[in-house]
Amino acid sequence: MRHFIDTSEYDRATLEHILTHALAHRGVRSQALARRAVALIFFDSSLRTRTSFAVGIAQLGGTCVTLEVGRGAWNLEYLEGVVMDGDKPEHVADAARVLSRYFDVLAIRCFPSLKRADEDHADPVIEAFRRYATVPVINLESALYHPCQAMADMLTIRERFGRTDGLRVALAWTPHVKALPTAVPNSFALAATQLGCRLTIVAPPGFLLPDKVMARLPGVDVIHDQAVLADQDVVYAKSWTSLEDYGASPPACYRDWILTPEKLGRARFLHCLPVRRNVEVTDAVLESIQNDAYDEAEHRLHVQKSILLHCLNII
Amino acid sequence: MRHFIDTSEYDRATLEHILTHALAHRGVRSQALARRAVALIFFDSSLRTRTSFAVGIAQLGGTCVTLEVGRGAWNLEYLEGVVMDGDKPEHVADAARVLSRYFDVLAIRCFPSLKRADEDHADPVIEAFRRYATVPVINLESALYHPCQAMADMLTIRERFGRTDGLRVALAWTPHVKALPTAVPNSFALAATQLGCRLTIVAPPGFLLPDKVMARLPGVDVIHDQAVLADQDVVYAKSWTSLEDYGASPPACYRDWILTPEKLGRARFLHCLPVRRNVEVTDAVLESIQNDAYDEAEHRLHVQKSILLHCLNII
Amino acid sequence: MRHFIDTSEYDRATLEHILTHALAHRGVRSQALARRAVALIFFDSSLRTRTSFAVGIAQLGGTCVTLEVGRGAWNLEYLEGVVMDGDKPEHVADAARVLSRYFDVLAIRCFPSLKRADEDHADPVIEAFRRYATVPVINLESALYHPCQAMADMLTIRERFGRTDGLRVALAWTPHVKALPTAVPNSFALAATQLGCRLTIVAPPGFLLPDKVMARLPGVDVIHDQAVLADQDVVYAKSWTSLEDYGASPPACYRDWILTPEKLGRARFLHCLPVRRNVEVTDAVLESIQNDAYDEAEHRLHVQKSILLHCLNII
Repeated sequence: MRHFIDTSEYDRATLEHILTHALAHRGVRSQALARRAVALIFFDSSLRTRTSFAVGIAQLGGTCVTLEVGRGAWNLEYLEGVVMDGDKPEHVADAARVLSRYFDVLAIRCFPSLKRADEDHADPVIEAFRRYATVPVINLESALYHPCQAMADMLTIRERFGRTDGLRVALAWTPHVKALPTAVPNSFALAATQLGCRLTIVAPPGFLLPDKVMARLPGVDVIHDQAVLADQDVVYAKSWTSLEDYGASPPACYRDWILTPEKLGRARFLHCLPVRRNVEVTDAVLESIQNDAYDEAEHRLHVQKSILLHCLNII
Repeated sequence: MRHFIDTSEYDRATLEHILTHALAHRGVRSQALARRAVALIFFDSSLRTRTSFAVGIAQLGGTCVTLEVGRGAWNLEYLEGVVMDGDKPEHVADAARVLSRYFDVLAIRCFPSLKRADEDHADPVIEAFRRYATVPVINLESALYHPCQAMADMLTIRERFGRTDGLRVALAWTPHVKALPTAVPNSFALAATQLGCRLTIVAPPGFLLPDKVMARLPGVDVIHDQAVLADQDVVYAKSWTSLEDYGASPPACYRDWILTPEKLGRARFLHCLPVRRNVEVTDAVLESIQNDAYDEAEHRLHVQKSILLHCLNII
Repeated sequence: MRHFIDTSEYDRATLEHILTHALAHRGVRSQALARRAVALIFFDSSLRTRTSFAVGIAQLGGTCVTLEVGRGAWNLEYLEGVVMDGDKPEHVADAARVLSRYFDVLAIRCFPSLKRADEDHADPVIEAFRRYATVPVINLESALYHPCQAMADMLTIRERFGRTDGLRVALAWTPHVKALPTAVPNSFALAATQLGCRLTIVAPPGFLLPDKVMARLPGVDVIHDQAVLADQDVVYAKSWTSLEDYGASPPACYRDWILTPEKLGRARFLHCLPVRRNVEVTDAVLESIQNDAYDEAEHRLHVQKSILLHCLNII
């Protein structure tokens, strides 16, 4: 079963194959999914993910149905063996099996609670779907990973530079009004490393990625000084929670980690969006010609079509 | 006008015709609904209903639009002649007529309030749509009936046993954390009886079905002892509200009515889902090979396609 | 770029061309939008707009994706240069650019706040989309305009009378339980005037349309007496906020402005719906044969297909 939950579960050749297919087929319409249906299951909000998947599936001739868990669709329990006497009327064990009867792919978004790191780092909801689904599961951003975003990121870098190998790429922490998940930085760091980038993490002390991710990033420097950003080919700006004060809003003392044109130097700018303007990044960065974030968002559409075809064994 | 609101409004031959068509055409794609559009109108949550209809309509080449009343779409008044100065900005009299201009079928889900039995037993919302719609109305679960579920139930029994006539079928009340509607048990009991099953209702005292349903179930035994379950061919597990203490959570003294493998004996297990695991039914029942509830859920897809074709006079 | 935000931005010939096309092609299916996708972006509720656009796009072979801002999709900031440290995680500047990469048309509904007239009269959200979108923007009802409704209104009048020129048309204020936006009356008044109707506004003192609209309605009479209604060819009933007590619920003293058959005389009745029965208009008016509001609602479907084709330069 070809799930797409974490890029680390695939070798580099497979990831490259998907990227190459995506670049070659952007804008192409087909009937490859003509008899297929994809469920987009959202426990959390989405703009790019839901629209780019819906449009991509339509471009492939497929059917797409969007479900909002706890709002329109039933709230879902995911723990094993529990007495279900709380506020969740249905279990993933049943929902995943039933939806597998209707759909050819289940695509799921479920953010972490940001309350208990150990629970979040077990990535319980997407893993429950992996366990019970009888069709491929695509991760639309789980507690730990956002592989579709990371593939769009790498597509953008490859298109901009013609390669990924050897590029100097910084994952640059930004300030925010609240704690954010680590899924995007985790998957970006893993995919960039898998595809040969020279990754540096630039963040305040305590803002590491989870141990189980860092363990797969051997040799990656973690630097607490934004001065290195200007030496990079690419700066990937993103806020994420501290591991030491898990789930707490970033302290005010780090507000000056906001990314400005001066710090960015001549590097290309990436961001997964949505972005808090003038909190994470200044308007000047976003309105500059170095901003590749809109191309990056567009690449979601292209690469996800190839991911769907990969999961269904069509490419 | 071929509405599909309550199986009792059709004779056995018509119901059999729909079931036979559904079994013969499962998985079949066509363009039978190529120029048609179906509105799925939800006053309440749904997982199976909304996804199985959406996929089924796509398999028939049709268009499906989902509306959530009171969330995205306007809240709807359904009482006649009222001064609409409350929180409902639109009347079913207008909404049903307008939607009939855009759609070929209106499919509606609206649960009962579970506050006043007399109001619920008049099934006011689906009846308001029946009155004002100028296209066929399909009931996706009203206060009193869930005919699409009942048809999927009967399809599952017929496929499992090759027939429905003469089978020993129990409608088995289960405990729950709150009062649930009677629509599923009502429609199951009616359809099973229409199709020749030997139905027994197994429930605590006071947990009868509404009078207007019981009146259509002549000769059906009501037994207050779960010991009879093990003698059945099929056990249909479901919780529903007491009529004597209408809308109240089931008393704690009935918690031991939970369905276990021992009580089930060798009967096949059906449940409409969602199911509260380890409250209504134990994990052991749901994980057993006697559990036909996932086939039953899949049959929603197959039978609803045939119901749509029936309502549109295509079969 | 052919946006469709306010009918005043087009000359009469273009509006007539769209109406003529709509009447000639009602019910016609095509593949004109076969490779196109339309985003329907709702900041506010909808019944007719979302369903008629979805069905119309399907009839043209296109793809339609519905987004609910702040519910499922991220809440959107629209002010320029702000520090985004509030409850809106994404800016229209970014969302509009990204969505323009996925979609061929962005269609947006965003009601006014009804708190500050000056802010509402700047129509900030639709104008932010106009500024940043790189594809055509269709207005599904903004703070100031509802051009798709106005086009359906004019189509209904033209079909009923065979012409629009010279018809006596009253925009008739109705009582309501709360203050409503002026978008519908603004666009109706502008379009009716553009298409040669003899418009009269019939409303209590203080219930004018905004200055920037009145300035485009030279020679239109404002009359504070419903007695003139019976002399009209068409009465367009609608409630809207007072400008003098902006956003306040209409005072109880105007409750007798409810529209009755006696006041209507022999005029045809139009209303954009939803309508508060027996508050704005009596049941007797709505159930009379003079009520063209259901045809008017149906015309949304027909005219919007032509508006889409216009915006995409296909007609």
